[in-house]
Amino acid sequence: MKIYGDIQSGNCYKIKLLVELLGLNYEWVSVDILAGETQTAEFLAKNPNGKIPLLELDDGRCLSESNAILNYLAEGTDFMPDDLFQKAKVQEWQFFEQYSHEPFIAVARFINKYLGMPEDRKADYESKQEGGHKALQVMEKQLSSTPFVVGDSMTTADVSLYGYTHVADEGGFDLSQYPAIEAWIKRIQQLPDYVGMA
Amino acid sequence: MKIYGDIQSGNCYKIKLLVELLGLNYEWVSVDILAGETQTAEFLAKNPNGKIPLLELDDGRCLSESNAILNYLAEGTDFMPDDLFQKAKVQEWQFFEQYSHEPFIAVARFINKYLGMPEDRKADYESKQEGGHKALQVMEKQLSSTPFVVGDSMTTADVSLYGYTHVADEGGFDLSQYPAIEAWIKRIQQLPDYVGMA
Repeated sequence: MKIYGDIQSGNCYKIKLLVELLGLNYEWVSVDILAGETQTAEFLAKNPNGKIPLLELDDGRCLSESNAILNYLAEGTDFMPDDLFQKAKVQEWQFFEQYSHEPFIAVARFINKYLGMPEDRKADYESKQEGGHKALQVMEKQLSSTPFVVGDSMTTADVSLYGYTHVADEGGFDLSQYPAIEAWIKRIQQLPDYVGMA
Repeated sequence: MKIYGDIQSGNCYKIKLLVELLGLNYEWVSVDILAGETQTAEFLAKNPNGKIPLLELDDGRCLSESNAILNYLAEGTDFMPDDLFQKAKVQEWQFFEQYSHEPFIAVARFINKYLGMPEDRKADYESKQEGGHKALQVMEKQLSSTPFVVGDSMTTADVSLYGYTHVADEGGFDLSQYPAIEAWIKRIQQLPDYVGMA
């Protein structure tokens, strides 16, 4: 299988982290968004939404959306519960991640780290802080009572949330206010076969 | 089971539509967001993220995030494929809906219909049009080749996308430009046990 991505994107890094933890064989295809590589006819044929990450199976079928890819790859492994309600909880946290976490924390990081905080984006950056802290508070509450977000075991929901949470400081979020999140980050980083973002 | 929601919210309506199509027994608990009912201690104990819709099972366990709820309720029914790749495609479209569709179409509708298009939100409203049309184009492309987004059968991904798409005109999106979407809307509205939003 091929994974099309940019390792600096948390959404792409999530996939790399999971496939490394699972020990899967894959080919990583680096895609440069800023050079327009997600908008070519060839790429749009694989993903009409023109986004990475994208998974291409050996038979040519393609799957987009980071969390859908994670869940597909994790099915039948320790990272995906068998119980239907627990499976639904994994998705609950992943939809939370895409709607209530990523649009604040990843976007603030993008403005600060990649755009270099231009004057005309400062208000936008500031507007992301409250929502980002709200998301971190929700995570902190859960991680104060269970070691991983869905319970005792690590699932793809943790992989999803780890992607941008562990670099949230690059978006101006001081994680020292969130000791349960900091402990969870360490727990993930100590896993065998863990790989970082760079 | 109880479903906490506001029927004017597309995210809540999705759940009502599916449970009616499935013929499930449920109690609908109306929640008034503007009156602060999602921020009470009692509600936050059920959903620390303070949002509706929320599913409460008879044993007290709670599940939030509209698409996670849909997939939980649909498991084992005709609305959820058995095949793992098809299941992943359902999630792909649902993550697309929450990230690339709802934040444009639902928010434009909210500004226009519920806020009455105040002067200071007009720029925000306008800024949602391009992204909304992009999402509709991605749907139109798929629905030009298959009757439902994942293939020949209706899945929860269609329920998810239907929620805000069928009222997209209230956000300023003229659906007559999208004939395949219009045919898909009619297909869903003709289902036995279909219920509308109001």
